[in-house]
Amino acid sequence: MGLSFLPKEYEFFDMFDNLANYCVSASKQIQDSVSSENFTGSEVQKIKNIEHAADKITYEIFEKLNNTFITPIDREDIHSLAHELDNIVDLILKISNMMTIYNVDKVNKKFLEVLKLIDTSIDYITKAVNGLRNLKKGNSIHEYCRQVNNLENLGDQLRNEAIAELFSGGFDAIYIMKWKDIFLNTEKLLDQCEDVAKIIESIIVKQA
Amino acid sequence: MGLSFLPKEYEFFDMFDNLANYCVSASKQIQDSVSSENFTGSEVQKIKNIEHAADKITYEIFEKLNNTFITPIDREDIHSLAHELDNIVDLILKISNMMTIYNVDKVNKKFLEVLKLIDTSIDYITKAVNGLRNLKKGNSIHEYCRQVNNLENLGDQLRNEAIAELFSGGFDAIYIMKWKDIFLNTEKLLDQCEDVAKIIESIIVKQA
Amino acid sequence: MGLSFLPKEYEFFDMFDNLANYCVSASKQIQDSVSSENFTGSEVQKIKNIEHAADKITYEIFEKLNNTFITPIDREDIHSLAHELDNIVDLILKISNMMTIYNVDKVNKKFLEVLKLIDTSIDYITKAVNGLRNLKKGNSIHEYCRQVNNLENLGDQLRNEAIAELFSGGFDAIYIMKWKDIFLNTEKLLDQCEDVAKIIESIIVKQA
Repeated sequence: MGLSFLPKEYEFFDMFDNLANYCVSASKQIQDSVSSENFTGSEVQKIKNIEHAADKITYEIFEKLNNTFITPIDREDIHSLAHELDNIVDLILKISNMMTIYNVDKVNKKFLEVLKLIDTSIDYITKAVNGLRNLKKGNSIHEYCRQVNNLENLGDQLRNEAIAELFSGGFDAIYIMKWKDIFLNTEKLLDQCEDVAKIIESIIVKQA
Repeated sequence: MGLSFLPKEYEFFDMFDNLANYCVSASKQIQDSVSSENFTGSEVQKIKNIEHAADKITYEIFEKLNNTFITPIDREDIHSLAHELDNIVDLILKISNMMTIYNVDKVNKKFLEVLKLIDTSIDYITKAVNGLRNLKKGNSIHEYCRQVNNLENLGDQLRNEAIAELFSGGFDAIYIMKWKDIFLNTEKLLDQCEDVAKIIESIIVKQA
Repeated sequence: MGLSFLPKEYEFFDMFDNLANYCVSASKQIQDSVSSENFTGSEVQKIKNIEHAADKITYEIFEKLNNTFITPIDREDIHSLAHELDNIVDLILKISNMMTIYNVDKVNKKFLEVLKLIDTSIDYITKAVNGLRNLKKGNSIHEYCRQVNNLENLGDQLRNEAIAELFSGGFDAIYIMKWKDIFLNTEKLLDQCEDVAKIIESIIVKQA
């Protein structure tokens, strides 16, 4: 171990920022992949690469946690936050894989709307994660987390509308089957964002 | 806090009775909504109102738990029982919402049979909850819980028959998709009732 | 309790061997049931009998655990291993029941391939369980567990191929619905095998 001019505890925050940035990249990438309302599976490899990078940094956070005696925030919160941020990237990859396996070609329009909600939610999470190194900004972090919760509620409404539309007649059974499954997983993704927000809020409360 | 002539600990039992009664109301309401073998989503609002009321009393139980030093039954059992009773109402609302979103119009006949099982199960739970304030009646409470378990087993059989019927030919794929999902959730509801019965049985065992 | 010439602690290993053998029997039986590429539900009863026998030995392990003061491996590991091995048999029965209820007649060819993976995975688990009584063979047990993990990964690939095939056109919605559900459960079964392998690996690590 070399000398470090920065207090070592700040490294955790850098690592979390990196991990949150991978969430952002994965979200941008899935949006790009479907932006033309056509889905080309060839783009999935890019998300797979992001997922590998996110796995790597998550593993590094766990390693550092094992080798650090005094941590800037509770050990179990560091573990949960890394794990749950990593799950966001995993779910984005899962949805992309699902679209390939289901041989999706024409993209459901409500799906594009849900992806935008997800992207906004991940942006708020990134801001909240970034704020962790300066908890005097607790109020704005709390506001970011509140926005993530709002977006989860909006997502539930949008999913209900999307599924109601699928079953309103005019769509064939196989199309309904595919998109019902995909919307189930976008719901999980927004729930996952909410879980991350909850962890961040509990960190703020403890440090207050 | 004012004076109370009743020992305060009894209030928990009153609150549990109230919560169990909301389970009964929600069950009666979903039966009414589909009784004509047609489903009209306009009735869902009534179940939504019951669900809000159940949430409120559950929250009040948690509040009271936080402010009470000595509780008549184990703290964690009070918490679990409130939470799991509330989940019964949540699941009834979920099934009602699902029927609206799936644009269900003609009600599957086996569904009406399952709803009757659910209603009977909730009646036994209400009796068991009511019995908690007088644990000398442990034997009859145990019998109510045993009935809830029986009804869960009967529900499994009935669900298997219902799904087998859906796949026996003569139904179109979209109809099958809707009802398979709904029967999956009625199964969860009967499992949920069984979970409540298990909590009640464990309370009796501890106090014996 | 009578006298026993064998050290009593070895009985746990015999019981685990028995339980693992029931996993093997259930796996062989489901393979037989579908080997002709036709599925006849009459064979399900045999799997049901195996499942009852596995339940019985699992219960006996729990009983013995309650009555034994010093155990050859950690108490919680004995409990988990019994419970998770029993779950393997439960899942095989669940898949068989599902095939009956879904009125499956023509067996999907990829399903036969998945069943072979499952059978191989269960064979490795049986060898690993058998090795527990002689932990000097830790290395070979570790190798069996590694193979179980490999098979889980292969299973994921095979399931993706199977689902992609279902959605490639040429299959009707009801057929897709049935087999998608069945492949979801074979995935759970291979995950379950991996969970057992994890427990066994953690036992080896602790005793090393």
